[in-house]
Amino acid sequence: MANIHSQRIEALRRRMEAEGIDAVIIPQADPHMSEYIASRWQARRWFSGFTGSAGDLVVTPDQALLWTDSRYFLQAARQLEDSGIQLMKDGLASTPSIPEYLLAHPGKHHTVAVDALMFSIDSVDALRDALAAEGIALRTDFDAAEGLWTDRPALPDHKLFLHSEEYAGASAASKLDMMRSAARERGAHGLLFSALDEVAWLLNIRSADVKHNPVAISYLYVDATPEGRATLFVAPSKMTAEVETYLSSQGVDIKPYDSLADFLRALPADIRVMVEAPRTTGAVRDILGSRAMLVRRSPASLPKACKNDVQIAGIRRAMIRDGVAMCRSLREIEDRMSAGIPTTEIDVAEILRRQRSISPAFFDESFGTIAGYGPHGAIVHYEATPETSSTLRPEGLLLIDSGAQYPDATTDLTRTICLGTPTPEERHDFTLVMKGHIALARMIFPDDTRGAQLDAIARQFLWHEGMSYLHGTGHGVGQFLGCHEGPQSIRLNYVDVALQPGMIISNEPGVYKEGVHGIRCENLVLCVPAMTTEFGRFLKFETLTLCPFEPDLFETEIMTDDELRWLNDYQTRVRETLTPELDPLTAQWLTDKTRTIERKK
Amino acid sequence: MANIHSQRIEALRRRMEAEGIDAVIIPQADPHMSEYIASRWQARRWFSGFTGSAGDLVVTPDQALLWTDSRYFLQAARQLEDSGIQLMKDGLASTPSIPEYLLAHPGKHHTVAVDALMFSIDSVDALRDALAAEGIALRTDFDAAEGLWTDRPALPDHKLFLHSEEYAGASAASKLDMMRSAARERGAHGLLFSALDEVAWLLNIRSADVKHNPVAISYLYVDATPEGRATLFVAPSKMTAEVETYLSSQGVDIKPYDSLADFLRALPADIRVMVEAPRTTGAVRDILGSRAMLVRRSPASLPKACKNDVQIAGIRRAMIRDGVAMCRSLREIEDRMSAGIPTTEIDVAEILRRQRSISPAFFDESFGTIAGYGPHGAIVHYEATPETSSTLRPEGLLLIDSGAQYPDATTDLTRTICLGTPTPEERHDFTLVMKGHIALARMIFPDDTRGAQLDAIARQFLWHEGMSYLHGTGHGVGQFLGCHEGPQSIRLNYVDVALQPGMIISNEPGVYKEGVHGIRCENLVLCVPAMTTEFGRFLKFETLTLCPFEPDLFETEIMTDDELRWLNDYQTRVRETLTPELDPLTAQWLTDKTRTIERKK
Repeated sequence: MANIHSQRIEALRRRMEAEGIDAVIIPQADPHMSEYIASRWQARRWFSGFTGSAGDLVVTPDQALLWTDSRYFLQAARQLEDSGIQLMKDGLASTPSIPEYLLAHPGKHHTVAVDALMFSIDSVDALRDALAAEGIALRTDFDAAEGLWTDRPALPDHKLFLHSEEYAGASAASKLDMMRSAARERGAHGLLFSALDEVAWLLNIRSADVKHNPVAISYLYVDATPEGRATLFVAPSKMTAEVETYLSSQGVDIKPYDSLADFLRALPADIRVMVEAPRTTGAVRDILGSRAMLVRRSPASLPKACKNDVQIAGIRRAMIRDGVAMCRSLREIEDRMSAGIPTTEIDVAEILRRQRSISPAFFDESFGTIAGYGPHGAIVHYEATPETSSTLRPEGLLLIDSGAQYPDATTDLTRTICLGTPTPEERHDFTLVMKGHIALARMIFPDDTRGAQLDAIARQFLWHEGMSYLHGTGHGVGQFLGCHEGPQSIRLNYVDVALQPGMIISNEPGVYKEGVHGIRCENLVLCVPAMTTEFGRFLKFETLTLCPFEPDLFETEIMTDDELRWLNDYQTRVRETLTPELDPLTAQWLTDKTRTIERKK
Repeated sequence: MANIHSQRIEALRRRMEAEGIDAVIIPQADPHMSEYIASRWQARRWFSGFTGSAGDLVVTPDQALLWTDSRYFLQAARQLEDSGIQLMKDGLASTPSIPEYLLAHPGKHHTVAVDALMFSIDSVDALRDALAAEGIALRTDFDAAEGLWTDRPALPDHKLFLHSEEYAGASAASKLDMMRSAARERGAHGLLFSALDEVAWLLNIRSADVKHNPVAISYLYVDATPEGRATLFVAPSKMTAEVETYLSSQGVDIKPYDSLADFLRALPADIRVMVEAPRTTGAVRDILGSRAMLVRRSPASLPKACKNDVQIAGIRRAMIRDGVAMCRSLREIEDRMSAGIPTTEIDVAEILRRQRSISPAFFDESFGTIAGYGPHGAIVHYEATPETSSTLRPEGLLLIDSGAQYPDATTDLTRTICLGTPTPEERHDFTLVMKGHIALARMIFPDDTRGAQLDAIARQFLWHEGMSYLHGTGHGVGQFLGCHEGPQSIRLNYVDVALQPGMIISNEPGVYKEGVHGIRCENLVLCVPAMTTEFGRFLKFETLTLCPFEPDLFETEIMTDDELRWLNDYQTRVRETLTPELDPLTAQWLTDKTRTIERKK
């Protein structure tokens, strides 16, 4: 019965016994608190066989347990078969949290071990505090895979390349100086950046180390004195002459990735180094000791979120390119359906990728395309596999959520299309989602408004009929960086960040009926000034994404004149902007899709 | 030049010098953190001459300064003339906070003194921490008026009376048991309640000690053991046989108000007493010492906010009574205008009071009536005085915000009426406010929604045209208790309390154009279940207040069918509910005011 995974866990147990450890937590994480994890750091996957993007493994002398959330209950149950690992369903009232479980199973040594290189300062502190309540000690230097995972993959080793100032709109030196000022204002002498997108943004460099995210595995230390230098820690093999020349001109030295710990240890004892507690590892903090100055939010966070005029011009350009690829893709899918060519969800993802790849500017998808047909559309994080991929039929809804990485922009959009004559329920649900999308797109709001204050604007029409969606309404988006970036968001949870001009955020309400269909309508919007009155300054959103909404899905009877006007203005703008870039057949298709939508009485 | 106030401050300075004190803070506060303060505790007023409801006085050896907010800038400047007291305009960027000022003026003894009986635990701790940064000590036992204010008024001494269970819907014993369970769950052995409305609610007693709030100056200690007793600390002269009998039957002992400190000191050393840090004084905490168990929110807060069915039935009854008084008042004002009888803002307040007094159930106004005519309507906290009271003319807007205390309800409503033919701007602004009011009134939202998430729903139409209002959209309301009660609210500021069935909250968007007019439309609404679907339970608001909106002020061209339907349904409900209780002439008036409002094309 023992499969390869249970054998690996048995080997780990022998190490634990030798070192007097009662439990080991092996999280899905990396030393940069990334959304996507390189193979080298997939220890949880190596021990458990579970491949989901979220889930932590706990191993004790007599039990192995994997905590994951509802997205992965089915997949985990299948992948954990024969491993002897018990599935712990996160989010159910009956499931204890990992600390709760550990407190109830203190073991004979009262010792839990983790590798602090895989835990943020916040999470390792929270864990230590929780365990202390029962006198359980936390060891933070235990790499579970050490000595066992002998064929562990090397770190990805893609070359660095420049993100030209023609795209970035600012020099690395100017951004580093901004960080130095922010540090000195708070009394810090240096800053350490661990978040890969912050390093890339600050230095105007990119790479391909992380799936869907054009970043390099690296750290950046910035000396905060006005004439201070900065030091990039990155594998020497990744360097190119061009990048080296640029970085040198910006006051940036280069050291090997592995030398960070020694570098930090050698810093003077009385120095204060600013690190962001939620996205810096406990391992870094342990090395810095009292030199670590913890802040809740990196000083790079807001400047990175607020795009400058050069960035915005590039993003507008990329939206045309991405809209062209989307129109050609949607037309190709429809043409195949009309011609009776069998087409699956996986085919849809491939069509999108191929159409986007036509542009030389295409670098990568910004995330794995979600093409969910019918009931699959109701699975919010669905990604078709050969086993699940449905074949499209001339009926029902197809939800397509996709995006691309271009040097001038990261895109992310969702369209829901109908493959036959839509049912009244499909039109009604779609229109409720679009009423929320339009209400948010048309919103004008004063300075100092938080995203959480606007979330209900997008939900109100669904709520009115007892429907809702469990994901956020909007997330920040980077420029040729993460498709999800902070600090701003529009969601139910309160986040204390005001929306500000230059921020890009998604507008993506949806509704998901289990076993029936899923609907989501997503554009990216840019926050811009609207007006200044005796009541102060007001902001609004400018919609950036250019792709038609499916005209057949609107139940116009429940739409207001303002909503119809917004919709027709948008469809017209899409047509007028994209048509010059389209082949004649797709232009014809777009003309039809963007025909004026009028209220049926 | 020295007036009576500067003489009093000089006398205080002699005491400060004798005791080695560099600065004294004299706040506008009482030992119960009340909104309205008894004369005995108006030391700030006695020293400064300033009568506003908000503002703290700081006295140093060579300066006296009064901090107050923009509502009171004009009044304070006038009242502080010749006192030698400098006005510090709170909220201006150039004005330091009190701690900032004290840190910059440490004095020769590095000692600031306050009376901790007038500061919450939170505020005294924050002050102590701030001062410690510069090594300034905080003395907390200094009553500035002691020995100086020889004719200091006694505490109010109104009789207690019962708030019958026919109104309250629950016995004192059952509410006390709920508190005991809550305390034991948190490991506390007792609870001390300092907030006067919580004592009154828990014991089903009322009095008239505080303006507009039918409460008694008192404390309540509850022994948390299952068979424990409770002890009410209240002046013996306030007791009546009826109250004594009831309280005795509910397991409540009675001790003199002044004996609280001795009682707390005599509690065993190892006991833990739960107190709410924001509404319990530093003086109480100093006495309890390590026995104090601080909580952020009293366990009485939510149960008091969520009204039971008996309370709700009473509140509905009172709304009819209050609506009748409002209709008769509005008609009387219009009749006087038509007859050419000079009518001032003060007259309006008197008419409302007289019409409400007709009912034997009327106990008091729930706050000072705001009757603001024309530009006065734009002063949010305007209360007419003989010097300011305008005489109404047959033009412009009149804003009337008023409410009453009845044994079955506390009411609070605002109507904005026009005294002549409204201008397009008046109608437009009024309609934008009403669109927000109606949007909130019609809102349906899921369980676990916070008020801050709904605030923008009421503001969106004003925001769209670059307008807003600086006050909250909704505040909780008590039953025959405070007109402002927590913990729920609907405002820009995030408060982590979900809206729940049984909560009563105001719906009061407005807009204020300085020098032009003020508009506010306020009803009280009750949170009730709306439906349960596969997406969970949804809640909605039921509007409780019954008083017509001014039909002539609607710009129907900018209203949707849904908005007009809500409005006409509401006006019809007001007419059908109130007419049976009205005299024929007022019924006729109401019929006209509630005529169907149709869209002008």
